[in-house]
Amino acid sequence: MFTVNWDLAHLAHIELLTPTLEASTRFFVDIMGMSISAAEGDSVYLRAYDDYEHHTLKLTANATPGMRHFAWRARSPEALARRVVALEASGQGIGWNDGDLGHGSAYEFHTPDGHLCEVYFESHKYRAGAHDASALKNTASKFPGRGMNVRRIDHLNLLARDVRAFRNFQLEYLGGRLTETILAGPDDPMAVWFSVNSKSYDLAVTADHSGHSSAAGRFHHLTYAVNSREEVLLAADICLENGVFIETGPHKHAIQQTFFLYVYEPGGNRIEIANTTARLILDPDYETVCWSLEERQKGQAWGLKTVDSFHTRGTPLVEQVEEVPE
Amino acid sequence: MFTVNWDLAHLAHIELLTPTLEASTRFFVDIMGMSISAAEGDSVYLRAYDDYEHHTLKLTANATPGMRHFAWRARSPEALARRVVALEASGQGIGWNDGDLGHGSAYEFHTPDGHLCEVYFESHKYRAGAHDASALKNTASKFPGRGMNVRRIDHLNLLARDVRAFRNFQLEYLGGRLTETILAGPDDPMAVWFSVNSKSYDLAVTADHSGHSSAAGRFHHLTYAVNSREEVLLAADICLENGVFIETGPHKHAIQQTFFLYVYEPGGNRIEIANTTARLILDPDYETVCWSLEERQKGQAWGLKTVDSFHTRGTPLVEQVEEVPE
Amino acid sequence: MFTVNWDLAHLAHIELLTPTLEASTRFFVDIMGMSISAAEGDSVYLRAYDDYEHHTLKLTANATPGMRHFAWRARSPEALARRVVALEASGQGIGWNDGDLGHGSAYEFHTPDGHLCEVYFESHKYRAGAHDASALKNTASKFPGRGMNVRRIDHLNLLARDVRAFRNFQLEYLGGRLTETILAGPDDPMAVWFSVNSKSYDLAVTADHSGHSSAAGRFHHLTYAVNSREEVLLAADICLENGVFIETGPHKHAIQQTFFLYVYEPGGNRIEIANTTARLILDPDYETVCWSLEERQKGQAWGLKTVDSFHTRGTPLVEQVEEVPE
Amino acid sequence: MFTVNWDLAHLAHIELLTPTLEASTRFFVDIMGMSISAAEGDSVYLRAYDDYEHHTLKLTANATPGMRHFAWRARSPEALARRVVALEASGQGIGWNDGDLGHGSAYEFHTPDGHLCEVYFESHKYRAGAHDASALKNTASKFPGRGMNVRRIDHLNLLARDVRAFRNFQLEYLGGRLTETILAGPDDPMAVWFSVNSKSYDLAVTADHSGHSSAAGRFHHLTYAVNSREEVLLAADICLENGVFIETGPHKHAIQQTFFLYVYEPGGNRIEIANTTARLILDPDYETVCWSLEERQKGQAWGLKTVDSFHTRGTPLVEQVEEVPE
Repeated sequence: MFTVNWDLAHLAHIELLTPTLEASTRFFVDIMGMSISAAEGDSVYLRAYDDYEHHTLKLTANATPGMRHFAWRARSPEALARRVVALEASGQGIGWNDGDLGHGSAYEFHTPDGHLCEVYFESHKYRAGAHDASALKNTASKFPGRGMNVRRIDHLNLLARDVRAFRNFQLEYLGGRLTETILAGPDDPMAVWFSVNSKSYDLAVTADHSGHSSAAGRFHHLTYAVNSREEVLLAADICLENGVFIETGPHKHAIQQTFFLYVYEPGGNRIEIANTTARLILDPDYETVCWSLEERQKGQAWGLKTVDSFHTRGTPLVEQVEEVPE
Repeated sequence: MFTVNWDLAHLAHIELLTPTLEASTRFFVDIMGMSISAAEGDSVYLRAYDDYEHHTLKLTANATPGMRHFAWRARSPEALARRVVALEASGQGIGWNDGDLGHGSAYEFHTPDGHLCEVYFESHKYRAGAHDASALKNTASKFPGRGMNVRRIDHLNLLARDVRAFRNFQLEYLGGRLTETILAGPDDPMAVWFSVNSKSYDLAVTADHSGHSSAAGRFHHLTYAVNSREEVLLAADICLENGVFIETGPHKHAIQQTFFLYVYEPGGNRIEIANTTARLILDPDYETVCWSLEERQKGQAWGLKTVDSFHTRGTPLVEQVEEVPE
Repeated sequence: MFTVNWDLAHLAHIELLTPTLEASTRFFVDIMGMSISAAEGDSVYLRAYDDYEHHTLKLTANATPGMRHFAWRARSPEALARRVVALEASGQGIGWNDGDLGHGSAYEFHTPDGHLCEVYFESHKYRAGAHDASALKNTASKFPGRGMNVRRIDHLNLLARDVRAFRNFQLEYLGGRLTETILAGPDDPMAVWFSVNSKSYDLAVTADHSGHSSAAGRFHHLTYAVNSREEVLLAADICLENGVFIETGPHKHAIQQTFFLYVYEPGGNRIEIANTTARLILDPDYETVCWSLEERQKGQAWGLKTVDSFHTRGTPLVEQVEEVPE
Repeated sequence: MFTVNWDLAHLAHIELLTPTLEASTRFFVDIMGMSISAAEGDSVYLRAYDDYEHHTLKLTANATPGMRHFAWRARSPEALARRVVALEASGQGIGWNDGDLGHGSAYEFHTPDGHLCEVYFESHKYRAGAHDASALKNTASKFPGRGMNVRRIDHLNLLARDVRAFRNFQLEYLGGRLTETILAGPDDPMAVWFSVNSKSYDLAVTADHSGHSSAAGRFHHLTYAVNSREEVLLAADICLENGVFIETGPHKHAIQQTFFLYVYEPGGNRIEIANTTARLILDPDYETVCWSLEERQKGQAWGLKTVDSFHTRGTPLVEQVEEVPE
């Protein structure tokens, strides 16, 4: 369909908006076990213990929850240059910004659903200090022994009103591979999963069923990986003990096989804690796995029925959409 | 051999001596995930999150490490009275004390190797407060999400110069069952494991090979249980990251099958973090499992050779014995 | 309320009825990883790899599923004699039978809901042969490396029309302790959990809501334990891959904290695969944990809503009750 | 140093030689849980349940153990063509063969230490049938529920007399990245780990210390991945119960952090069962992690001393080298 390119290296970071910056920060630090790299103005920058970059999450105070932007890191300066050429040709390009804490200038664009995205190469990698250096020099910083102990950013899930348009844009202008999809009919995708490396997905996009004309660029969830399914179970207990709302899980997705736990952080955004076991996509001509709506309706891998809110709830909430400036 | 009785309910608590009270306390709180119930004089009282009593560990400042006393809880006031009668007849009895924080008066005695032990019934059970109540009312306090998250006291291991004498004393005057033993020859035990409930052991006693005439009443290790073998592995990473000395493990014992990790707390005492999987001794006429020295020399379950220090090191260290008053 | 006694050692075995004896046997052997000890007439005798007795499950061909009888093993001949005296006085006693493969004569009685139960002491313990001896002499037979690898029988769950009557009968004439209960009102139990050792429960009884006057003595589920929660997850995958119906789970019960998976064996009986982590009840004066209906309605520990069939389905099915002779 | 290319997609398969073909086959099928894809002449072709190709292991009868060849799959026909041009220029090229069961023609070459290697693109992917299709269409075949249940091939470890020469050859003519290395001095590597995708390594090469002039092209170990560390522990129990020699482990490597178990298959070749937790190398300009000999001498991650045989034993054994024809 499209010429496959591998110019993107990985999902880099997400800027989440929260009406409760302090409580959200405490959630990511105390419950998820992440660390603060920096705080500046209305934003706090965070990373998991083995995230190698300055941050993978930027929390910014805002009247409503949601996502302000997300970022890809390119594989090389040349790969970045190629993507910029493509994005400029796509009509979705915005232009270069000056970078942010932790990374150099980035090229900004809009997804077809209006999400703000950027791509960059220059990264100021995290260097642990005496207080947080790991005993193992192949780890970005020490295992925290705090809360869920999440290891690294895993993937992002967005809502889009036109999933096919998003899919085509991503494959044509950004690259990577469509590893799995739900098809309501021939070439009528309801959900798509993209991978830009050996992971089975880095970005998922699912249909926004709200029917609200202004419900553009909404956020579904952000996922951090732990090292085992047992740690996902421990994460569930930690949520239970600390009053964190569990939407669904722990359970195993049929699609992509991820062992998942979905919770809401205090600001209202959905966060997933997951483990993918030993699954990787190493086959260079992997064929997209297509699921029909009937297959989807079987529920999750072991039969759990998907809760309604998982299909309908994104941030900002539909009732908050009017309030979102732009 | 002896009339079996089940008058003891479980191992209750241990008083460990430490020359570094503050560092030892930080170890049990920050690394092991235990909580402080009280501090009084030179002692700090601690418990794991699902220990139902006031404390299972009392840390007391002392010039050298080791154990000052340990305690059993009896099954009932009547069971306690029966044990006191027996202990008085044994010639090892000392008399009643006034109790301590968390429990009523206890009857004290010496083991044949000189360890100080007490048995009591009246327990002032731990009542969690608003800050540490679990969301599950069948848990003594909330899962901490800190360090190793140990759940409950599991067992105690002591050294004795005459293991046979200790074994006979325990079975005749205290009760319970000998579940496993290492025999150097007919009725020549080198190590013994006692159970007073459905656990496979609550107390182990191994031969003190130091040959030092004053090396009486020494301590080998104290064990806390976590909920899974995966958490024992996480405990090992937490030790690695925090400079805690790992003596051996994680690995699986052939004897008793415990999945173990042995470390030294800052005061020098050996601590085990363990998981026993689903093994229980429910058979009411269980036959003692006897291991020969040859079987023992095969190493641990999966072939790990036992490190020398595990066979020789107890606290106080042999070179510290002279310094111990009394 | 009642004088506590500990004359019962543990749940011993269950005789399940199945209209598909061959398929049920294959399920327990190939999927659950159990082994056949004997086959005689219309019955097959099975055990898990660390069950120390001849069998813990007897499968018997029958037109409908359900349970024919279950058995307790007493702690000693004297304990058995005491229970027989009590049961005879209860008015529920039947008399002695001649025993069965694997155990000596047993005293039979009916529970207040009509379940047939027996209690015995003499057990012909399983002795592994060359083909199935474990490398660890403290294990009843070798770890099978087949299917779910269940380790040992864990507990039984029955339905009863009058839960209070069952509870009172059990505590007065059999013994043990009520560890948890759901109360619809003062002394109006909807479910009860009994323990006769350090496990948190060996027998659970829940209200039979069928309203069918002949729905007596019905069976809810039988549980086998695996060594870790990870193995419960693997068990779910094995069911998924082999077309075994998963009713609910894996998830964690709030009550008793068991990590569970419920499936139907080919004959229609519900089977649970579970892990209880490191939880034990060692407190000799443990206070019963009481759950209100409101607490119960919160769902399972992490919020999973209990599926309707779990509340209503027992074997024989209500529509099969007419067909049950007797 | 070299221009990085990503023309190789992944390690594809290994042909192991065994003097006990039948016993080796039973080991991989019954103990490891792999399946036979085909048998032809003196060879048996096997795969793990989620290996997507026809086979990842070819066992061939031979007087001595060792490796006959190993294979890389290229990312595309164009990538393959580029590698062939490079290999021909390297002086190590041999030429094209006709392919084998499961893949098209491959270009053969020798590593600097004399190992036979091939690279190909055309793959006849495995298509599961009714008997082994997974319930999840994103899995190559069903989870076996047999033995260790290994999921997929993970990596290969070879011995080489000149590790620097091997390293330079691999990076210059094959591509990928050097993720970790042990350096005895400046540019004096004792061991090297290469990755050609997001895994932290696909191929490791360690110094062959035998000092035997004919000890060329020796094999150290082949690794299959399981989904969790808990399954590595279960694998150890399965080896224990079935008389499989465990050389070392389970434990965690400091280098690469792999949770490992090393055993010998009946033919004498070393096999590793491993889990890498959630670690991946996604950083496109990852800097090689260099370990000094002093750091290496600390032992494995949690302090286990590396057993001597791990440093010296390869197949064919040194005493078998004379016997190897060719």
